[in-house]
Amino acid sequence: MEEIVVKFVGRKPVLKEPILIEGLPGIGNVGKLAVEHLIEEIGAKKFVEIYSKDFPPQVFINADGIIKLVNNELYYWKAKSKKHRDLILLTGDYQGLSSSGQYELADAILRIAREYNVKQIFTLGGYGLGREIKEPKVLGAATSKRLVNRMKKYGVIFKENEPGGGIIGASGLLLGLGRLYGMEGVCLMGETPGYLVDPKSAKAVLTVLSKALNLEIDMTELERKASEIEAIAQQLRSLEEGLKRGKEDLSYIG
Amino acid sequence: MEEIVVKFVGRKPVLKEPILIEGLPGIGNVGKLAVEHLIEEIGAKKFVEIYSKDFPPQVFINADGIIKLVNNELYYWKAKSKKHRDLILLTGDYQGLSSSGQYELADAILRIAREYNVKQIFTLGGYGLGREIKEPKVLGAATSKRLVNRMKKYGVIFKENEPGGGIIGASGLLLGLGRLYGMEGVCLMGETPGYLVDPKSAKAVLTVLSKALNLEIDMTELERKASEIEAIAQQLRSLEEGLKRGKEDLSYIG
Amino acid sequence: MEEIVVKFVGRKPVLKEPILIEGLPGIGNVGKLAVEHLIEEIGAKKFVEIYSKDFPPQVFINADGIIKLVNNELYYWKAKSKKHRDLILLTGDYQGLSSSGQYELADAILRIAREYNVKQIFTLGGYGLGREIKEPKVLGAATSKRLVNRMKKYGVIFKENEPGGGIIGASGLLLGLGRLYGMEGVCLMGETPGYLVDPKSAKAVLTVLSKALNLEIDMTELERKASEIEAIAQQLRSLEEGLKRGKEDLSYIG
Amino acid sequence: MEEIVVKFVGRKPVLKEPILIEGLPGIGNVGKLAVEHLIEEIGAKKFVEIYSKDFPPQVFINADGIIKLVNNELYYWKAKSKKHRDLILLTGDYQGLSSSGQYELADAILRIAREYNVKQIFTLGGYGLGREIKEPKVLGAATSKRLVNRMKKYGVIFKENEPGGGIIGASGLLLGLGRLYGMEGVCLMGETPGYLVDPKSAKAVLTVLSKALNLEIDMTELERKASEIEAIAQQLRSLEEGLKRGKEDLSYIG
Repeated sequence: MEEIVVKFVGRKPVLKEPILIEGLPGIGNVGKLAVEHLIEEIGAKKFVEIYSKDFPPQVFINADGIIKLVNNELYYWKAKSKKHRDLILLTGDYQGLSSSGQYELADAILRIAREYNVKQIFTLGGYGLGREIKEPKVLGAATSKRLVNRMKKYGVIFKENEPGGGIIGASGLLLGLGRLYGMEGVCLMGETPGYLVDPKSAKAVLTVLSKALNLEIDMTELERKASEIEAIAQQLRSLEEGLKRGKEDLSYIG
Repeated sequence: MEEIVVKFVGRKPVLKEPILIEGLPGIGNVGKLAVEHLIEEIGAKKFVEIYSKDFPPQVFINADGIIKLVNNELYYWKAKSKKHRDLILLTGDYQGLSSSGQYELADAILRIAREYNVKQIFTLGGYGLGREIKEPKVLGAATSKRLVNRMKKYGVIFKENEPGGGIIGASGLLLGLGRLYGMEGVCLMGETPGYLVDPKSAKAVLTVLSKALNLEIDMTELERKASEIEAIAQQLRSLEEGLKRGKEDLSYIG
Repeated sequence: MEEIVVKFVGRKPVLKEPILIEGLPGIGNVGKLAVEHLIEEIGAKKFVEIYSKDFPPQVFINADGIIKLVNNELYYWKAKSKKHRDLILLTGDYQGLSSSGQYELADAILRIAREYNVKQIFTLGGYGLGREIKEPKVLGAATSKRLVNRMKKYGVIFKENEPGGGIIGASGLLLGLGRLYGMEGVCLMGETPGYLVDPKSAKAVLTVLSKALNLEIDMTELERKASEIEAIAQQLRSLEEGLKRGKEDLSYIG
Repeated sequence: MEEIVVKFVGRKPVLKEPILIEGLPGIGNVGKLAVEHLIEEIGAKKFVEIYSKDFPPQVFINADGIIKLVNNELYYWKAKSKKHRDLILLTGDYQGLSSSGQYELADAILRIAREYNVKQIFTLGGYGLGREIKEPKVLGAATSKRLVNRMKKYGVIFKENEPGGGIIGASGLLLGLGRLYGMEGVCLMGETPGYLVDPKSAKAVLTVLSKALNLEIDMTELERKASEIEAIAQQLRSLEEGLKRGKEDLSYIG
């Protein structure tokens, strides 16, 4: 069996120098939430399924009882006017389990991207702070000074030595290996506590991306999800405080 | 050395669109017990041994002092009348140790299945509940709505979001990868506490399978094994209660 | 780089249906001690070095400051008379680190063995009991009933269900995979506490092997090593008893 | 994707039997510090980037916000006069993560070395003592008695059974595998506490190397770094003593 199985679904689309946008599972699921929201809002269509021996040997079961082998998927969207660009969107159930598998997957995706003449990549992810955040900022990294400067205009923050350990996983690897394929790219990282999935951070990232792509994206659904998560977070906080107060009371008694 | 070594034993059988039935080790060993019982009862014959670098580097020693390298095995059974279908049955000592090995093995088995023109797969396993069960139910998952509906008629239960994590291992993978080979399939999961091997759950699974295959299977031997296990479980419970009571007594004294 | 690098040293020997004897590191280092003693006593000559990506990335440094990359090695010995058989002896610094590496190594060795027309294999190892043993017995496992019976004559013990988990590692794998190459074989396991290297157990194993091979082997050196280890074991026991007595004394005081 | 991706940067240099010098991350980062200092001082130029699936899937971000995929790199230096030799210098962000990856990387580097007709290798590293050291000595290991004797003249110490476990990682492997390519070599290990990066130990190693290569190397920058680290170590010691004294005081009170 091949390390990676690439399965085209339906007819291969004809795209004009599309931009590749990645959002796979990761901290706060920021990237995945953002790309899935984007796919939904612009009505992008699936055209590739990617299976790998480096994903878990696992199928999911949907509400109808139908199984689905875990994978990564590519969607495409054709620009409706000259102010937009064609897009390829990458999302999925997992990143590769091993270091080697991560490289294999990024490489397989870049080979497809090259076939479609991709020149530019946006990778989306979260930047875990381990504390609550009022308004998540968006940090960036890029393959060239020119792109760094362009991103600064859209409000992206470039901090020296942040993230300290660089970027680990698909978001970094697609840019790093992409350079070897002659592609340039930007990583956008939304600040996130990192405890729960974080639609608020996904919205912050998409807001920057929409400026860079000159796209208008309706954020209503992401905002609704963000409220839901905020409610859950609030409940958890109450619970925690309750427990703490309980302990204090007991310590009086004891 | 090849990742997988497939060794045909004796003459290759000629089979007519056989159905593949999998039962490898897993939770409660439900699938393996079921398929081994089926092999025994219908008198299926071994025709393939499968060795893999992803099995442990281990030989078993039988009662005579003879060694056996750990493997997976395929058996076949030719239908005696028109109301039955030819069968290929898969069982073995282990599942692959790594994610990659699991994919390799499932793929190797599906290639053999394709050679024999397999169109349909049943995978059998356990669904661990972590508590005692009076009458184990059989949960299902399938590759199509049609199969889901057909299985419901045989008493298979399809619950939304169960199992929550989907199906991990060969039972899921053969269906998931099988789809890529154009095969359809069903996974039957017998409820089981998951503490001990569970012939009662295996019987429940086989009961559903016998309806789906229109086969009559004598369950006496599985029932005998189930009684044995029930006796052991009873002893363990007495022991546990004894220990608990002992503790209570001691706490009186102390 | 190839998974396995096989390097012939000097001129390739011409051997007549040699018997392969394996003794790699393992419990009590019984197999390795036995084969290294045998190589020394009969004056076998190295003719193959085997390197593998699945050995640790490590060199040893000898007393002169010269490095040596960890490996496995094959030695040969040509029979001096008709009552003996040509031999190939396998020993080394490590077994493969991973399951897959173990298979690769066993397979590479069997390919060399096949080139030399090897028909029979003896694998030597220890059987860890986790307790002191006065006179270590030698347990066996084999690829055929005929060999089991032959070994029984030499005092080898075949116990049902022992070792319970079968044989793990090269000693089992060479026999298990060897069968696929049409070779037959025997595994001889010397009982050992398993705490320290065990020359006494190695001697027991070699005693059986010498009968099977019709070879006379001088055991003086192994006996000397056994005395050394016995002295160390004695010291450890004294130390332990001292500590225990110390504790008892203290408990009086306390 | 290939296991290893070798990317030449700029024009391939023409070198005359260059000497390969390795300094990758390891204990006290001694080797990496030494080689990076050497590259800086002699003005060696990068000509090869080496990427591997066995490095972490990670990019670093530099002060400008530009990403860099983790890698190993080769630099070259052409001798200015007859008393010097051409050099190839190896350094990088990581060693391979797995045993297999370590072998792959060493092998890939040796293949490049062979292309350039490398006959001799120096590998540089640290030897962790786990205690403070006034004047770090340099221990050695080599591929021949002749080299051992030559190194002794430069003050390298060859101790029987040290390091006890041999040499693990690239420094050992390049010599061990290098022998199979017909290259000879020396490993120079600077004694180091191993707690912090150790420029003092790197200087000791470079001092020996400069004699062996007949090179004059300005050590000012390494000495500056050594003072910095010494200051940090001093602070840590004060802190520790403060904590200890604190405890003693408290134990009086308690």
